[in-house]
Amino acid sequence: MKSSNVVWHVPQISKEEREKRYGHKSAVIWLTGLSGSGKSTIAYSLDAELFKRGVISYVLDGDNVRHGLNGDLSFSEDARRENIRRIGEVSKLFADAGTIAITAFISPFKDDRERVRHLFDNKTFIEIFVKCPLEVCEERDPKGWYKKAEKGEIENYTGVSSPYEEPESPEITLETDKRSLKECVQKVMDYLEKKKII
Amino acid sequence: MKSSNVVWHVPQISKEEREKRYGHKSAVIWLTGLSGSGKSTIAYSLDAELFKRGVISYVLDGDNVRHGLNGDLSFSEDARRENIRRIGEVSKLFADAGTIAITAFISPFKDDRERVRHLFDNKTFIEIFVKCPLEVCEERDPKGWYKKAEKGEIENYTGVSSPYEEPESPEITLETDKRSLKECVQKVMDYLEKKKII
Repeated sequence: MKSSNVVWHVPQISKEEREKRYGHKSAVIWLTGLSGSGKSTIAYSLDAELFKRGVISYVLDGDNVRHGLNGDLSFSEDARRENIRRIGEVSKLFADAGTIAITAFISPFKDDRERVRHLFDNKTFIEIFVKCPLEVCEERDPKGWYKKAEKGEIENYTGVSSPYEEPESPEITLETDKRSLKECVQKVMDYLEKKKII
Repeated sequence: MKSSNVVWHVPQISKEEREKRYGHKSAVIWLTGLSGSGKSTIAYSLDAELFKRGVISYVLDGDNVRHGLNGDLSFSEDARRENIRRIGEVSKLFADAGTIAITAFISPFKDDRERVRHLFDNKTFIEIFVKCPLEVCEERDPKGWYKKAEKGEIENYTGVSSPYEEPESPEITLETDKRSLKECVQKVMDYLEKKKII
């Protein structure tokens, strides 16, 4: 690598080579839905199921992204848009690394989700609508946020003071008030098999 | 998952379980040095060598980060700091996923690198100083940027119009004007073996 014999273009391991080695395709499994709809629960259960099967996957959710990478962002509309943009870009890196990224964020706006979808080819981006009536989510209210939002203590809360735009044609819809967690995870696994991703 | 029997806390696959499965520890290999010092060349060569050995690794560099995740950032001092912060956080996600992230960014400021180091425990973060005299880097000038910086066409160019703060105690130093690419990569591989990371 002395100046006289610098090799600047080193062959890079392609995504396809990594996928071949890992024994599965890369993908982004994008879970969208109201707070309390069950996104994180499904994400971690799916991740565990994929792990059992020898698939290399990883969950991106509020716990590991909101305090780290996106710790500088507020909950204003612009900041929420930027939040989703960055998550899209990070999941793209994970997919390029040959792995399956599972994201669990409300991602309420169709435009934001479409923008992320366009980062990928059609087979790579799998949008999952985690569908659950608002009343059921409010009843679950795992973190007490709906109550706070209804009292006005939290602004721009999706479903209360900010809209949730349902996906029009998601790859998968999971109705978490009607199906068990196991059934929901199985439905995703079946889809991944059918599409020859795993 | 009906509202009456929601399981909110699903067991998560830990980093340690993933490391065991993948057969190696996770790590962040942080290459720092002047433009033209050989960071990307070493990063991709190391990645290929790790791939040969069955290690799960991925390179983060300007090509996949600057136009994507950090496409919104300028080259001002604040933006460059934010650039490094985000790369640190993304490499933390890759490490948490049980993989080895290799980053190739000038990252000229000691404070910024130290802030990233503090995201990890001592064994996980491996700082590599890719050391090469400025004159050699300027002679290599693979993208013609030194010439532009010298003409004043690029502002804040490290080594020309902006300082590069050398690491005081990096885990590894690679002198790319004195050693071959092969020797540099081998030195890193030896370190990873010695530390039982691979």
